[in-house]
Amino acid sequence: MTRISIDLNADLGEGFGRWTLTDDERLLSVVTSANVACGFHAGDAVTMRRVCELAAARGVRIGAQVSYRDLAGFGRRAMDVPAAELAAEVAYQIGALEVFARAAGSRVSYVKPHGALYHRVVGDPEQAAAVVDGVLLAGGGLPVLGLPGSRLHEAAERAGLPAVAEAFGDRAYRADGSLLPRDREGAVVHDPDAVVGRSVAMVRSGTVAAHCGTPVPVRARSLCLHGDTPGAVELARRVRAGLEAAGVAVGAFA
Amino acid sequence: MTRISIDLNADLGEGFGRWTLTDDERLLSVVTSANVACGFHAGDAVTMRRVCELAAARGVRIGAQVSYRDLAGFGRRAMDVPAAELAAEVAYQIGALEVFARAAGSRVSYVKPHGALYHRVVGDPEQAAAVVDGVLLAGGGLPVLGLPGSRLHEAAERAGLPAVAEAFGDRAYRADGSLLPRDREGAVVHDPDAVVGRSVAMVRSGTVAAHCGTPVPVRARSLCLHGDTPGAVELARRVRAGLEAAGVAVGAFA
Amino acid sequence: MTRISIDLNADLGEGFGRWTLTDDERLLSVVTSANVACGFHAGDAVTMRRVCELAAARGVRIGAQVSYRDLAGFGRRAMDVPAAELAAEVAYQIGALEVFARAAGSRVSYVKPHGALYHRVVGDPEQAAAVVDGVLLAGGGLPVLGLPGSRLHEAAERAGLPAVAEAFGDRAYRADGSLLPRDREGAVVHDPDAVVGRSVAMVRSGTVAAHCGTPVPVRARSLCLHGDTPGAVELARRVRAGLEAAGVAVGAFA
Amino acid sequence: MTRISIDLNADLGEGFGRWTLTDDERLLSVVTSANVACGFHAGDAVTMRRVCELAAARGVRIGAQVSYRDLAGFGRRAMDVPAAELAAEVAYQIGALEVFARAAGSRVSYVKPHGALYHRVVGDPEQAAAVVDGVLLAGGGLPVLGLPGSRLHEAAERAGLPAVAEAFGDRAYRADGSLLPRDREGAVVHDPDAVVGRSVAMVRSGTVAAHCGTPVPVRARSLCLHGDTPGAVELARRVRAGLEAAGVAVGAFA
Repeated sequence: MTRISIDLNADLGEGFGRWTLTDDERLLSVVTSANVACGFHAGDAVTMRRVCELAAARGVRIGAQVSYRDLAGFGRRAMDVPAAELAAEVAYQIGALEVFARAAGSRVSYVKPHGALYHRVVGDPEQAAAVVDGVLLAGGGLPVLGLPGSRLHEAAERAGLPAVAEAFGDRAYRADGSLLPRDREGAVVHDPDAVVGRSVAMVRSGTVAAHCGTPVPVRARSLCLHGDTPGAVELARRVRAGLEAAGVAVGAFA
Repeated sequence: MTRISIDLNADLGEGFGRWTLTDDERLLSVVTSANVACGFHAGDAVTMRRVCELAAARGVRIGAQVSYRDLAGFGRRAMDVPAAELAAEVAYQIGALEVFARAAGSRVSYVKPHGALYHRVVGDPEQAAAVVDGVLLAGGGLPVLGLPGSRLHEAAERAGLPAVAEAFGDRAYRADGSLLPRDREGAVVHDPDAVVGRSVAMVRSGTVAAHCGTPVPVRARSLCLHGDTPGAVELARRVRAGLEAAGVAVGAFA
Repeated sequence: MTRISIDLNADLGEGFGRWTLTDDERLLSVVTSANVACGFHAGDAVTMRRVCELAAARGVRIGAQVSYRDLAGFGRRAMDVPAAELAAEVAYQIGALEVFARAAGSRVSYVKPHGALYHRVVGDPEQAAAVVDGVLLAGGGLPVLGLPGSRLHEAAERAGLPAVAEAFGDRAYRADGSLLPRDREGAVVHDPDAVVGRSVAMVRSGTVAAHCGTPVPVRARSLCLHGDTPGAVELARRVRAGLEAAGVAVGAFA
Repeated sequence: MTRISIDLNADLGEGFGRWTLTDDERLLSVVTSANVACGFHAGDAVTMRRVCELAAARGVRIGAQVSYRDLAGFGRRAMDVPAAELAAEVAYQIGALEVFARAAGSRVSYVKPHGALYHRVVGDPEQAAAVVDGVLLAGGGLPVLGLPGSRLHEAAERAGLPAVAEAFGDRAYRADGSLLPRDREGAVVHDPDAVVGRSVAMVRSGTVAAHCGTPVPVRARSLCLHGDTPGAVELARRVRAGLEAAGVAVGAFA
């Protein structure tokens, strides 16, 4: 009998120079995959180096959290970046992070788009293809972490890159498996108990009740946790504890 | 009998987004080593990719032209960057460029500091050590191109990195082998014939007449050419032609 | 009998640090209104100061060419900037330029969005309103230069700001008065004689033949000239000479 | 009999985009002068607008906290910026802030350099003169807040600008009235009671015991408080309460 297993990923290293955001050390004791900011929406070279060292020391896998070039907007503003630019910028970010991952005795093992780029490549085939081109340019055939059914995953699969699906225990789903947009009522689950319960149920059953009640299949190999709000790390710990108590094996995706 | 040989290096890819500066294509038909800007003083991801492709296609070696983070000042303003920051920023730049060099079938083969950083590490042991730390962090034991006798070269040698010396055919030297600062009269040789003559003589004899007349030993394995001013590429061509006519073998340093 | 008059505007000061783009001095001998870049897509403080001094010395009116914050993309990438951010960023740019305009004995006299923002506010009412909010925030009730019929002009008029229409002698129009997008065949008129002829005819007659042949009314108080391509300044001169030869009074809009 | 009075200033608005640093609302209930970051080391347009609105609503005076252009280093890295650039950049920052101060019904009333620039202009006459040139360029003859005896104050006085001296209750002084550099032992006073006691004594007596014991005259019209560390706002409150309890009138400098 195979034990159910799940990866836990979170964004890390999202400070910049004097500013800090994520509680990297504590998050790294919870997650199994670290989405490390690469300097385009957050993340300076010193922070990238330190997060890679901490992650490597704890056996947490390192991923490149690639973004539009937008420090002022924290990568949260959709941008019409031409495909050739976007591809090259994605590769640039992966390459910069790879140096610190290797220096720490690890490697960049996957790529996950951040913020507005993440949302854009759910539905935009051109930018999705550009992100994949960037991953290919960087070499190594890295897996691409994202929403199942997204244009990003379609493009990754066409290119022969592993498409790794992730799910969200704190977000409401629509019947088609997409996320209810943040500006809709009930889009974000705030109650910690509910987040833990949903996360465990989702991972164990492979389904989640959509906003309208319909059960939706969720075949995620990773669960996305958040670390940039007060109480977030504590909640992340509780999700992990809940999964483990339910017999789920927590570990980096294969 | 060993034929005298010399490498020719120049700064390339020094545009940014909409702006261009260096005539990369024409320069690449002259030089044997391309100092490619890595995004901190100039150089966007698209340009870096293109320059690496052009360089690889012509067999020109690719080097990382690392800089202070200063697009507004083109890396020409000395900055008191703490050592840990500088080291990490140097590594970041090398890693970013490496992606494009590899994608083009080549590799980053050396590192050369740019502008104010270049001049700072002639005399500043702390920043020199930080640059070397950055090169070590990036891995591969890359050679460091710079002024002979500089703190940078001392630090590189202490760290076991090859220190490759370069010379300037268009700059006046002082008796101690250092360059006469640009703001001094006669610091820059403007006459094209004189530049060609000095370059050839310097490479063939291994000495140059200092500003005061004294002969100074110049044991350079590379000659630095410039490409960012009108007529610069034509002058670079003439220097190369002059060297070849004098029986010097022009090729990348070993 | 009233003589027909027209303003000539062009983008200026679009370099950044080491990089230059527009031939500011020569353009300032042709235009009557200078759209000065304010640092967000181009334009550093030194350049802004110099362009304001040159413009003031020649009696050329100074306008703030406001943009998305996007040096890497030269402001040419559409961005989903939240309204409050966009308004504040527009005001910031106007304020920064005002210092140099005043120091030169002039004032910022109008506002014109640049690049992707210019195109976005033709049809996007939210961003159009945000730009107008930024102009209001900056004070002085400045006129807003843009496409007639645009959302920007509607928002300006609702807010009580003068909406000044501009026309393009080198662009093809559609029957509804909008510009044929640049990626369509025939969108840009390249033949200098044709540009001069269209410019003069457009200003004198108040109409232009649309792409499909239909005459379209063009009630522009300003004609947009370009200065960032080879031969552009010479063409601008010819347009001005053509207008003057046709009896049109060339001068800043009232 | 004249009552002793003192201004209290602190740095505000030092976040950037997604990142926050200073507790602006609470600080504004303590200080009488707000050094507002202008976008070069910190401070985006939205934050600048909000801080100006809050400051104006509470009658707190607004000052431009001008900096080197260095978001990555938070303006803490000394830079060799040429005088013409530095002057223009100072003016740019003042102009940008002025828009938001005016929109809030206030004005920019003084200028204070930040971080590495603050320290550089204590001893560097060229950069000090450049800052003053920038203040002059911005118009209005604004007072310059800084260290008494600094080159900045000398340059301000030569130019006819008011030079306003500030003191630090949490820093050790040397016998010549300069601050003991931060890297020296005992340079920063950490004990809150000691900071309150020193602040009150310094303002009341006009002297402070230097590191070596010698009394040093401190003729400051403003006291600099800090708000960017945990407990800082509470300490600032205590300093103000201590001053008021000692009969000192707390108010913006004349």
